Amino acid sequence: MLFFTQCFGAVLDLIHLRFQHYKAKRVFSAAGQLVCVVNPTHSLKYAPTRCAAAQTSAEQGVLPPCHHHEAVHDPQLVPCTCPLFSCPWEGHLEVVVSHLRQTHRINILQGAEIVFLATEMHLPAPTDWIIMHSCLGHQFLLVLRKQEKYEGHPQFFATMMLIGTPTQADNFTYRLELNRNQRRLKWEATPRSVLECVDSVISDGDCLVLNTSLAQLFSDNGSLAIGIAITTSKVHNAEAEM
Amino acid sequence: MLFFTQCFGAVLDLIHLRFQHYKAKRVFSAAGQLVCVVNPTHSLKYAPTRCAAAQTSAEQGVLPPCHHHEAVHDPQLVPCTCPLFSCPWEGHLEVVVSHLRQTHRINILQGAEIVFLATEMHLPAPTDWIIMHSCLGHQFLLVLRKQEKYEGHPQFFATMMLIGTPTQADNFTYRLELNRNQRRLKWEATPRSVLECVDSVISDGDCLVLNTSLAQLFSDNGSLAIGIAITTSKVHNAEAEM
Repeated sequence: MLFFTQCFGAVLDLIHLRFQHYKAKRVFSAAGQLVCVVNPTHSLKYAPTRCAAAQTSAEQGVLPPCHHHEAVHDPQLVPCTCPLFSCPWEGHLEVVVSHLRQTHRINILQGAEIVFLATEMHLPAPTDWIIMHSCLGHQFLLVLRKQEKYEGHPQFFATMMLIGTPTQADNFTYRLELNRNQRRLKWEATPRSVLECVDSVISDGDCLVLNTSLAQLFSDNGSLAIGIAITTSKVHNAEAEM
Repeated sequence: MLFFTQCFGAVLDLIHLRFQHYKAKRVFSAAGQLVCVVNPTHSLKYAPTRCAAAQTSAEQGVLPPCHHHEAVHDPQLVPCTCPLFSCPWEGHLEVVVSHLRQTHRINILQGAEIVFLATEMHLPAPTDWIIMHSCLGHQFLLVLRKQEKYEGHPQFFATMMLIGTPTQADNFTYRLELNRNQRRLKWEATPRSVLECVDSVISDGDCLVLNTSLAQLFSDNGSLAIGIAITTSKVHNAEAEM
C-alpha cells in the first residue's frame, strides 16, 4: 500500500512539473527561447543631474566621458559611464562590461532573441532590472526602470543601450515585446549608446513606457516577461551590400 | 517671354505637387493605403462619472444601457452610448452610428487597413480625434484622446471600440501602429464594446498610451499618423473551422 501511495505521489509530482514546464513554455514561446530571470536592484539614492555633462561629451565624440572631468566645477556633476540607477562609478567604455559583471553581478546572455523576466514588479520606485545581452559581436544592456515621474504614479521605462559609441549604436535596431492577456505591445528603435546615459533617455521618455495598470496586465504573478530581439539596421545592411 | 515664365511656373508647381505626393506616400506607405485626415474636437465640459452605470449594464448583457436609467437616482449618472468625450447623448446601440454621423459629422471609412492622421496635436487637453471604420461587416470607432491624468502632463490615449456588444467585440483584434524617426510602436488588443464606455477604458490605461515627448517623436508637422488594422481573432477562426 505504501508503495502505491509513493508511486501515486511521484506521478502527481511529475504531472505538476510537466504542467509548470508547459505553463512557462506557453508564456514565453511566442517571445523567444532563452529565458533570463532578472531580480530587481532597489536604491534610495538618486542623482538626476549626473548625466548633464555625459550627454555633451557623447555628442562631441567617442572619447569616454571621464576625460572631460576637468571642465566640470561641481564634483557631483561628473559624467556617468555606469548606466545603473545610482552607481557613482565612472570609467572608460572598455571596462563598463567588467564593472557591471564584477560590481553589480549583472549576467551576460548570448543569443539573438531572449526573454527578460523581471521579478517583483511590485517593489517601490526607484528600482532597476538589468541584464547584458551579447549579440552580433557587441554587448547591449537592457534597463527596465520603475520611477515616479509624477509623484505617486510610478511608471516602467524599458530601453536597450549599446556598450559602445553612438556611431556604433546607429547600426542596430532593438525590439521589446510584451505579450499577454490578448494584448501585445511592441517597441522598436535604434539603441542609444551608454555614453548618452540611460537617465536622460528615460527622462526624455524616448523608450517603452508602461503605466502601472498596463504593467499589471502584462505581468504574471508579479513578473514581467519582455521578449528582446536585436538586428542590424537597414542603413548598415545597405552599406554592407555596397 | 510671358509664355515661358508661365510654363516655368507650371513646371515648378508640378514638381512641388509631385514632391508633396512623394512625401505623403513615404510617410504612410508602411502603414496602409487609405489616409483619413481627422480634425480635433475640443471640449471644456467633462463628466467623468457618466460611465459608472454603463459599465455595470454592459457586463450584465447586450441590452442598450438606456433601459437601465430607472435605477439611477442622480440624472447626471446615466450611462453613455455616445463615446464622445463630452456628449450627453444616449440611445440604443443601433442608432449610435447615425448619431455620430449626423450630430458629430464623424466619417466612416471602408477597408481592412487605414491610416488615421490626427491633426493639430498641440491643442490643449481635453481633445478628441475620432473616426468610424467599417470593416469585416462591423463598424468600429477609433478614439484618440489628449487628456491630463496628472495635472500639467497631457498624455495621448488611443483605443478602438466595436459599435456592438462585448460578445461580438471578442471576435476581433485591432492593431494600432506608429512608425517614424526610426521608432515603431505597435499595440494589439481585443476591441472593447462602446457599451463599456471609452472613458473607463482610458482611465484604466488599457490602450495605447503616449506621453507628449513620444507623441512629438512620432508626429510630422503637428500631425500624428496611426496605422489601423482589424482582423478576426484566433478564437473566432477556430470556431469557424469547427
